[in-house]
Amino acid sequence: MSEKSRKPLNTLQKAINKPVIVRLKSELEYRGTMSNVDAYMNVILTDAEEYDGGSLSANFGKVVIRGNNVIFIKIQPDIKVI
Amino acid sequence: MSEKSRKPLNTLQKAINKPVIVRLKSELEYRGTMSNVDAYMNVILTDAEEYDGGSLSANFGKVVIRGNNVIFIKIQPDIKVI
Amino acid sequence: MSEKSRKPLNTLQKAINKPVIVRLKSELEYRGTMSNVDAYMNVILTDAEEYDGGSLSANFGKVVIRGNNVIFIKIQPDIKVI
Amino acid sequence: MSEKSRKPLNTLQKAINKPVIVRLKSELEYRGTMSNVDAYMNVILTDAEEYDGGSLSANFGKVVIRGNNVIFIKIQPDIKVI
Amino acid sequence: MSEKSRKPLNTLQKAINKPVIVRLKSELEYRGTMSNVDAYMNVILTDAEEYDGGSLSANFGKVVIRGNNVIFIKIQPDIKVI
Amino acid sequence: MSEKSRKPLNTLQKAINKPVIVRLKSELEYRGTMSNVDAYMNVILTDAEEYDGGSLSANFGKVVIRGNNVIFIKIQPDIKVI
Amino acid sequence: MSEKSRKPLNTLQKAINKPVIVRLKSELEYRGTMSNVDAYMNVILTDAEEYDGGSLSANFGKVVIRGNNVIFIKIQPDIKVI
Repeated sequence: MSEKSRKPLNTLQKAINKPVIVRLKSELEYRGTMSNVDAYMNVILTDAEEYDGGSLSANFGKVVIRGNNVIFIKIQPDIKVI
Repeated sequence: MSEKSRKPLNTLQKAINKPVIVRLKSELEYRGTMSNVDAYMNVILTDAEEYDGGSLSANFGKVVIRGNNVIFIKIQPDIKVI
Repeated sequence: MSEKSRKPLNTLQKAINKPVIVRLKSELEYRGTMSNVDAYMNVILTDAEEYDGGSLSANFGKVVIRGNNVIFIKIQPDIKVI
Repeated sequence: MSEKSRKPLNTLQKAINKPVIVRLKSELEYRGTMSNVDAYMNVILTDAEEYDGGSLSANFGKVVIRGNNVIFIKIQPDIKVI
Repeated sequence: MSEKSRKPLNTLQKAINKPVIVRLKSELEYRGTMSNVDAYMNVILTDAEEYDGGSLSANFGKVVIRGNNVIFIKIQPDIKVI
Repeated sequence: MSEKSRKPLNTLQKAINKPVIVRLKSELEYRGTMSNVDAYMNVILTDAEEYDGGSLSANFGKVVIRGNNVIFIKIQPDIKVI
Repeated sequence: MSEKSRKPLNTLQKAINKPVIVRLKSELEYRGTMSNVDAYMNVILTDAEEYDGGSLSANFGKVVIRGNNVIFIKIQPDIKVI
């Protein structure tokens, strides 16, 4: 396992400008490019799509998601496969 | 991708006086001009409209929304297309 | 747009002694004169009316509302039009 | 309007030893003499009555209510009219 | 009214080793001797009884209740009348 | 009453390596040896059993429970009587 | 009992790069290798599987789980027996 231990928020910082999936406590899920994130997990997504129960429900040019609603942020591989 | 990394709250500050959509944990959504916002995502909207489940439900001259209710703030493009 | 950027809580301070509507996370809504407010959005209303689902449900001489229950505070224009 | 601006918690301090009504997030409501209160809205009531949905449900000699459950504290006029 | 103003948490400290009733946000209620309490309302009860909807549901030799679940702590008179 | 007043969290520290029952806000309950606990009531249990509505639902070699889910920690007498 | 007392978060740090099960407040459960964790129980899992009500529902290359959703983290023995 070549993966060294990193603090969770450092790992998030390294994923800036990569595609991510942000799942919220509600059924909503947002997919887009994470243009920024802070220690509270406030996230900015660009070119974001909203999925509600698995179905595309809205498009967002730029959205700021408040961190306290986040369950997880899935970091996508560099090859965009959303 | 010409978008540089910015802290989420800085990005919000740059959107002051632009049209935004503020979605709350309840079904409510507010659309208006973001005349201010702070680090807690307390937001002031002017000329705001309240949407409840997609339908216009009220108009507000000026309203201060408490940040802990916010799920996201969508920043609209400069050309107002609400 | 002549409205300058102001911090949300400064804006609330400027609305002291004006009529406001305070909406809570529950269905309750309070209308009255905001005799004070602090950074946590703890609010004092005087001559307040409680509305439950749109109907007047109680009158309050003076009430202190705990800020964490607040969704928004709507600042009314100077001409009282509640 | 002779009411000067006061911080909400100062106003609560001035109501010590006066009759108050404390409404909680649940349906419960407590009426009694506020023998003390702090900045978190932890409240001590003496000679308190508990109302559940409007009906008297219990009597309390002395009770300490944890502030985070409080929706509002209604300050009664000096002439006890509960 | 000879009762002097005391901070709520001081009053709790003075009730150490007295019988109390601790009501939680859930329907549960605990009755026992408060062997200690801190500023967060974390409480230790000894010889405690659990009541669920008014019925005795369990006995506890010693239990530490986490303060954030507490609605109120009722301080019983010195003559144990639980 | 020979029990001296102790801070609640000190009492928890003294129960390290003793059998405890940890009840969570959900219906879940965990029984095991408390190999550690901190001020936030984060708890490590070893040889733990999970009970869901009174029935054994899982076994855990070692589990770290996040404190904010805890309702209470019941400290068992030295003679293990779970 | 050879297990010495350790602070809960130290124990978590020692489980980095080991297999864990992370249970959330919702029904969701995540199994994978804990590549990092911080004091808030923000967790990074790699090669993670999501279980919803006991059934495998998704695979994640790398996911950052926000700590406030966590109920517990079960540390698996070194021999992977998930």
